[in-house]
Amino acid sequence: MAVYFNNQFLQDEEAMLHVSDLSIQRGYGVFDFLRAVKDVPLFMADHLERFKASAAGMHLPLDKSLDELGKIIKELLRISLFPETGVRLMLTGGYSSNSYSFSTPNLVITCFPIKAATATDFERGLKIITYEHQRELPHIKSINYLMAVWLQPLIAEKQVDDVLYYKNNIITECPRSNLFIVTKDNKLVTPAHNILKGITRSKVLQLATSIMEVEERDIQLKELLDAAEVFLTSTTKKILPVLSVDGSAIGNALPGPVTKNLYERFIEREREFV
Amino acid sequence: MAVYFNNQFLQDEEAMLHVSDLSIQRGYGVFDFLRAVKDVPLFMADHLERFKASAAGMHLPLDKSLDELGKIIKELLRISLFPETGVRLMLTGGYSSNSYSFSTPNLVITCFPIKAATATDFERGLKIITYEHQRELPHIKSINYLMAVWLQPLIAEKQVDDVLYYKNNIITECPRSNLFIVTKDNKLVTPAHNILKGITRSKVLQLATSIMEVEERDIQLKELLDAAEVFLTSTTKKILPVLSVDGSAIGNALPGPVTKNLYERFIEREREFV
Repeated sequence: MAVYFNNQFLQDEEAMLHVSDLSIQRGYGVFDFLRAVKDVPLFMADHLERFKASAAGMHLPLDKSLDELGKIIKELLRISLFPETGVRLMLTGGYSSNSYSFSTPNLVITCFPIKAATATDFERGLKIITYEHQRELPHIKSINYLMAVWLQPLIAEKQVDDVLYYKNNIITECPRSNLFIVTKDNKLVTPAHNILKGITRSKVLQLATSIMEVEERDIQLKELLDAAEVFLTSTTKKILPVLSVDGSAIGNALPGPVTKNLYERFIEREREFV
Repeated sequence: MAVYFNNQFLQDEEAMLHVSDLSIQRGYGVFDFLRAVKDVPLFMADHLERFKASAAGMHLPLDKSLDELGKIIKELLRISLFPETGVRLMLTGGYSSNSYSFSTPNLVITCFPIKAATATDFERGLKIITYEHQRELPHIKSINYLMAVWLQPLIAEKQVDDVLYYKNNIITECPRSNLFIVTKDNKLVTPAHNILKGITRSKVLQLATSIMEVEERDIQLKELLDAAEVFLTSTTKKILPVLSVDGSAIGNALPGPVTKNLYERFIEREREFV
């Protein structure tokens, strides 16, 4: 498995950071994650733009242009050539002399085989629970997943697939995906504030506008439980129906027609891309 | 500089973590930090107890007893022998196969020369600003300092020494220290909730009870600005007077008599220990 580390292509086992790096010392760094089918990275320009914005938002200078990053990713994909690949770009706070101040960031790009959600996963759908929490600096894709990792034992105990954050009764996002609801009067609604704006989220919004009314706005917990359909979007999940929230069924607890329609359009959109 | 990494003593430059570690992938890990004078670690039992509690609170199994950790630290101090040493214990989420799930934690203990606050630093005092923020899982000493590191450019721009967090008008703590106020009717008050309970904080509370009334409770922002004296406590700061908050002078903007008294008692307490 090949890795790009600062200015070199290395073997996976050589991708090591000294413990003085601010990611290890202070959990300080940004990343982005995209998916490739064979050697074709999906929506790479969007992911690289967001990576650049995350770096800038965290005061981390990025010494490569998006064009250079794109070329490195393509070279990694050429070397790796898995059927489906996850590409992870990371930019850390760098080797800090006092374990607190910024230093020159370390750039690490890794490629690894993944299995994105399939049609079978779509039919099975997801069960989620809600948890009161607001991510710090939510618009930045930082490496801070303290709460998400910490909640894993609770998710296992409740035998569900994921957790949805809310604050003051307003829902926001899952740790690694965005949420949409289809209201009973057939509007597609997704949270607008205090979230990370996913790339799949933006593609779904684009696909939906031609077929239905779309709103980006706050959603109350109550409105979520009362929705006709609920689904999550992410790079690996694509679109997956949510069939229950906190043990309450959504609609008839089966993937709904709007979710299905959008899913088919999204798969078609991906196919065109590849 | 010597390092202990899992079950080995290594050279500093060998203390490397593979990028799949959950600290790098998800900012997930705990630590503790203590100070040694020559080869004597200060309040080590308290720090080790807290480290153990942080690990348990984060679902991270610690495969060493506190006695074993103490012996490793003493060996590191014997090898290093600086006049003043910082000892940092870290336990990370481990090398994760999917960059999300827990694995066997990595334990890293590093020693490095430090310069704790001096009498001159005490006389100079500190200027701080306030910032609305609540740390996640505040009672655990996790490596999540996203906000603290992110705020450093603001601290530099405002030409102050540190930032004090508050939420809903209640003050809590600075990123790496606890705060105390001395009220105009001569009570020592320090926040009780939503903070990390510092070891120096607990020593100061012990020292203070014999000389004055002490309260652990919520403190409003307004009460802070109206205090006779304000000071911070931490392992490296010991006790440092806060002379201004958000540009407003505290008292006459000089170290106050109560702060001085507690500082002298604390230095004396340390001296006995060494």
